[in-house]
Amino acid sequence: MTPLKLLVTLGALGAASHAMAWDYVLLDTDKAAQPWQITSQQLGVKTDKPFSVTLRTLHGGRQEGVSVVDIDNGTLKLSVVPTRGMNVLQASVGDVRMGWDSPVKEVVNPAFIELNGRGGLGWLEGFNELVTRCGYEWVGHPGMDNGELLTLHGRAANIPANKVTLHIDEKPPYAITLRGELKEQAFKKVDFSVQTELVTEPGSVTFALNDTLTNNGDYPKEYQALYHSNFSTPFLEQGARFAAPVKQVSPFNDKAKGDLADWQTYRGPTKDYDETVYNVVPYADAKGDTLTVLHNKAGSLGVSVGFNTSTLPVFSLWKNTDTQGQGYVTGLEPGTSFSYNRRYQRPLGLVPTIAPKEHKQFQIHYSLLADKGAVDKALKRIDTIQNGQKTEVRQTPLVDLSKP
Amino acid sequence: MTPLKLLVTLGALGAASHAMAWDYVLLDTDKAAQPWQITSQQLGVKTDKPFSVTLRTLHGGRQEGVSVVDIDNGTLKLSVVPTRGMNVLQASVGDVRMGWDSPVKEVVNPAFIELNGRGGLGWLEGFNELVTRCGYEWVGHPGMDNGELLTLHGRAANIPANKVTLHIDEKPPYAITLRGELKEQAFKKVDFSVQTELVTEPGSVTFALNDTLTNNGDYPKEYQALYHSNFSTPFLEQGARFAAPVKQVSPFNDKAKGDLADWQTYRGPTKDYDETVYNVVPYADAKGDTLTVLHNKAGSLGVSVGFNTSTLPVFSLWKNTDTQGQGYVTGLEPGTSFSYNRRYQRPLGLVPTIAPKEHKQFQIHYSLLADKGAVDKALKRIDTIQNGQKTEVRQTPLVDLSKP
Amino acid sequence: MTPLKLLVTLGALGAASHAMAWDYVLLDTDKAAQPWQITSQQLGVKTDKPFSVTLRTLHGGRQEGVSVVDIDNGTLKLSVVPTRGMNVLQASVGDVRMGWDSPVKEVVNPAFIELNGRGGLGWLEGFNELVTRCGYEWVGHPGMDNGELLTLHGRAANIPANKVTLHIDEKPPYAITLRGELKEQAFKKVDFSVQTELVTEPGSVTFALNDTLTNNGDYPKEYQALYHSNFSTPFLEQGARFAAPVKQVSPFNDKAKGDLADWQTYRGPTKDYDETVYNVVPYADAKGDTLTVLHNKAGSLGVSVGFNTSTLPVFSLWKNTDTQGQGYVTGLEPGTSFSYNRRYQRPLGLVPTIAPKEHKQFQIHYSLLADKGAVDKALKRIDTIQNGQKTEVRQTPLVDLSKP
Repeated sequence: MTPLKLLVTLGALGAASHAMAWDYVLLDTDKAAQPWQITSQQLGVKTDKPFSVTLRTLHGGRQEGVSVVDIDNGTLKLSVVPTRGMNVLQASVGDVRMGWDSPVKEVVNPAFIELNGRGGLGWLEGFNELVTRCGYEWVGHPGMDNGELLTLHGRAANIPANKVTLHIDEKPPYAITLRGELKEQAFKKVDFSVQTELVTEPGSVTFALNDTLTNNGDYPKEYQALYHSNFSTPFLEQGARFAAPVKQVSPFNDKAKGDLADWQTYRGPTKDYDETVYNVVPYADAKGDTLTVLHNKAGSLGVSVGFNTSTLPVFSLWKNTDTQGQGYVTGLEPGTSFSYNRRYQRPLGLVPTIAPKEHKQFQIHYSLLADKGAVDKALKRIDTIQNGQKTEVRQTPLVDLSKP
Repeated sequence: MTPLKLLVTLGALGAASHAMAWDYVLLDTDKAAQPWQITSQQLGVKTDKPFSVTLRTLHGGRQEGVSVVDIDNGTLKLSVVPTRGMNVLQASVGDVRMGWDSPVKEVVNPAFIELNGRGGLGWLEGFNELVTRCGYEWVGHPGMDNGELLTLHGRAANIPANKVTLHIDEKPPYAITLRGELKEQAFKKVDFSVQTELVTEPGSVTFALNDTLTNNGDYPKEYQALYHSNFSTPFLEQGARFAAPVKQVSPFNDKAKGDLADWQTYRGPTKDYDETVYNVVPYADAKGDTLTVLHNKAGSLGVSVGFNTSTLPVFSLWKNTDTQGQGYVTGLEPGTSFSYNRRYQRPLGLVPTIAPKEHKQFQIHYSLLADKGAVDKALKRIDTIQNGQKTEVRQTPLVDLSKP
Repeated sequence: MTPLKLLVTLGALGAASHAMAWDYVLLDTDKAAQPWQITSQQLGVKTDKPFSVTLRTLHGGRQEGVSVVDIDNGTLKLSVVPTRGMNVLQASVGDVRMGWDSPVKEVVNPAFIELNGRGGLGWLEGFNELVTRCGYEWVGHPGMDNGELLTLHGRAANIPANKVTLHIDEKPPYAITLRGELKEQAFKKVDFSVQTELVTEPGSVTFALNDTLTNNGDYPKEYQALYHSNFSTPFLEQGARFAAPVKQVSPFNDKAKGDLADWQTYRGPTKDYDETVYNVVPYADAKGDTLTVLHNKAGSLGVSVGFNTSTLPVFSLWKNTDTQGQGYVTGLEPGTSFSYNRRYQRPLGLVPTIAPKEHKQFQIHYSLLADKGAVDKALKRIDTIQNGQKTEVRQTPLVDLSKP
């Protein structure tokens, strides 16, 4: 296909070729999501392996009308769900899968979910992603705050993206950027928009999220964010380990106290285990960057989750090492806050405020650590950040959950 | 149309011709529900009367996007609603209609219903079917159980079917089978799937439901099922009668006590009657099969509802003989349970458990009894099952509803 | 285009040409809303300025699948939202806009709103229209009544219209009438239908709503209606004024008491003002017609809202003169009732009953007052209705909100 023909073809699909990049509108007010694909071959780009981006729509059941964007960067395959807060459904490199097997098999259209159902746990009817955005009005367990039932982990994961665009750099390394805007708006209540951004480069085993929360309103507003990043096998297994530069760790609740001594190692699938959660305050480098790692028992395979602590100062380690069928999964969760209901987090100083027109940026990097060398390098980076500084292991939860 | 041409045509529609049957996928993850029809003529099948199956989509109002499958077996016309739990909207033979006239005129897309609204009675905003599936996590009146508001009659009727397939036997009697899968899933809460099946044969005045509930989870789970089968005129009228082999009958509540003496006969449309409900424990034959009948005053027209008591051991008779406009209707409701909130049914032993990976089958047969002969034959069958065994008429409800 | 060709073309679009009018079905059970337009040129109609009616569908975010009908009468442009209760999203004449800037920027599909969320304030997630229908089972602030949570301002604004038709008179002044039916139905609870009607004439700066509520049920039912008509700049500004023939005015609550002396004048955008509301009982003429006016400080630009007090006997003036970003807006709200929860309005006699099969008509006229002459004429009409009759200024609210 000649460049000229290309432009003609893309024009019909809402694309525009700028000086330095190809830009495509995948979804907008006047543009329905429709089957579509662009490939490196079509763009006339030569990379080691061809890459592509595909838009498709799911049908049937509670996934009727859900849009999915599949990004294959040649090495890493990613699926992003515009209809569900631009969540990252799954990622894989070859047969190594980042993500987990939730009992929820459908990619559920928020139209079919009542977040206020199940006592505020309706969110659980759609939860199955690798990265589930939580926020931005609130995060945490359901419960009353200021006379209102806050539903589990806020609304973000159940807000369909308003405008979805794809941007591919025209020069090496041909970075692929998928953007989608979430509007979290209610008269008198909230006027947030979130410009989500996912970036990956052809051939790499990493992707990054760069989200920008804007308070469009005229008043300062409380907000919270938490990136619920969920992994299972082959990373998670008996003897798998979690590593991070830790300033403070504490058990989320009384149950987690019991396993505190082993908080950095994992059990195999364990009947009736349910979950334990540990609240972590990480150390970071001078720029505020920090790194966390989950790796298998042998230390030969892992994932790293890096984030900037200037806006994501705390971290929850969710160890849901119950049976495979119940959901054998661990969550690495950078956040403004822990997973308590918002009313418990105010006294902890973990309910920040965003000023009118202010922007807050949340940056998280995800990498596959494909071999021992990669795992060791990441662990070394953690050591460097820890730099011999002390870790406080709190024996008791930060919050007395017996108090309302 | 030659067989060859047929295959070509059907191929484009997702059909596949097997040795002994025609199979069609009407709806699946990668296949949207679209206008479609297959007829016995197209299949080259000769039956006494031609049959057909048609897929259509409703628009406007709260029925936007609702799929309906119309099965005309040549004698009996059935409408099934994939978008609403594969419920049977209505059935008719000539101008004899099985079903009723609900004030709810739309076939409501669950996307527009809040089951948690109206104090857990949101279900009433979509209730208008001949057969409404109730379950499978729970059935019964709304109320708190284990700290959660259980909404009226569970979620099944408001779960869109995930995959819908049509199967037509290639040899006489050319049985027509429509299947649709419901997923009832929530992380940590439930992992059920229900393979629904509706079968009818060309020319017959009967259809059967054969549903299979599977607990995909790793833990035993409580479940409940109730098949809310609703009839009105011409079966229901003043002096119409209900018959069944009855081991025990009891009034649902204090109101039903008053009419207990006449529990098997019906009033005409009665202002301010609202409803009375009777809890029935039926006798069954050696295989567990039992039969219930509703017939008009003259005994010249009726319907029978047969079911297997191994999984559906109890039965509710719902007598909503209020005015036509309010909904003049009676429900013949085989179930695992009565219609009390789940918390009341545990002590009655009516909240069964399904083991991990276990299947539970629910089989219900519906027949039009088109004349006195058919009615008498069904009543005789009931007599045979009763076989002179005693009926206990309990004067008081099984449950003290004044207790929380 | 010749008339003959026109008919052929329109035929494919569901149009029918009657003797005296053109009629089009825009949306119905068997007709999806699809891009469509009709223009005066196509109809062969000569008016001073050409007129047109356009149907479009919005995509992306929570507005996925929302239908909008744009009526351009040559002078006045109107947008009506079938998917949201046939609400009038906005209207404009040249660059004079009737309507306001809500923080809610999307035209939200009710499928994505939980009215029961936010303690019954879920309605606020979609509120951004010029005219938002409130009712018809109830209006008012959320709260319990008869054991049920009544959500803010009822369901009407979040009921998608069932059947939408366009009617254009074939003779001058070629009145354009858009109709859409809302079904508000729940078994045992309510069986209302509302035939909404919006009428405008080519070249005029006015439009009228003529809604007919029908109780299809067999029992008398309580109902309430309120037409939440919302305006901002250029009408609303510091020193802007409200005028009406007032029999009684009272502050809605304690907060409104403070500004009672200035209840008919407006502040500019005022930080932390939130809102004050005044309850007005208007005088009307012998036919029951009354008129209310909002005009700018100079009295050179305004809007009038006229209505018939036989069915809309009271009026709320909502003064939400907070900042522009928070929503600088005033509501002129004719109603059966004020904005209290229904339980407070029964003792005030403001919860009327509609008999079985009875119809209630609600007629509201909206006019742009484009210059001082038009404003003065409207104010004079108000004087004529007031006719020197006394205004009771109640110092205290009609309702003691401290009582449950």
